Amino acid sequence: MDTMGRHVVAELWDCDPELLNNIEQVEKIMVNAAIESGAEVREVVFHKFSPLGVSGVVVISESHLTIHSFPEHKYASVDVYTCGDRIDPKVAAEYISRGLRAKRQETVQFARGLGKLKVDELSMESAGGTVR
Amino acid sequence: MDTMGRHVVAELWDCDPELLNNIEQVEKIMVNAAIESGAEVREVVFHKFSPLGVSGVVVISESHLTIHSFPEHKYASVDVYTCGDRIDPKVAAEYISRGLRAKRQETVQFARGLGKLKVDELSMESAGGTVR
Repeated sequence: MDTMGRHVVAELWDCDPELLNNIEQVEKIMVNAAIESGAEVREVVFHKFSPLGVSGVVVISESHLTIHSFPEHKYASVDVYTCGDRIDPKVAAEYISRGLRAKRQETVQFARGLGKLKVDELSMESAGGTVR
Repeated sequence: MDTMGRHVVAELWDCDPELLNNIEQVEKIMVNAAIESGAEVREVVFHKFSPLGVSGVVVISESHLTIHSFPEHKYASVDVYTCGDRIDPKVAAEYISRGLRAKRQETVQFARGLGKLKVDELSMESAGGTVR
């Protein structure tokens, strides 16, 4: 298997805090994001913190999706890393952002496995539009 | 809980390929890296690909550690993300690099959860020393 991969780091702000604290909903959104992007789900593990917050991981054949939610700050920290060029990690990241009703997001995309770490793309989006 | 976190993305090259393909060893190194850094382990999930490669995640109270190994390329793609400032993700990343006997590594550290994604530090290391 080729080492080339793409990794989207997404900071989601002004999300729905009730969703962020609901482990079943967060897990469903993350698994569906993986499926939506065309990835093959291998392992799913989610953890609820008391009283607030969910952490979880979806291991896919093509790498992983992770989330850490902070309902009290309406913030979720999301990573989508996909090896190869068949799956676009942005598709999953955007699905998660929509699912959690983020009003602002900042994302950075890296190229990985190529010998040199490289930031491909940095974008900020809010209700007002996209800044690149 | 505060949203502030640090995320180390580490590209490990020229690792020991036998170690990279041994799920028990990879899991042990990842869990011990978390413990070594002072993190609290919550969930552990590892997956062996046939014939080559291991993917795994250690969910910690402070976020996560992940690995994807490519024994045929002697490469491992590692992330260590820790929320708060109590745990230094570099301690875990360096433990994993030593454990897998990486001869070259490239790492980037991000600040997360602060409203603006920011690259704190980029370093390349090889047997010859460190370049920052």
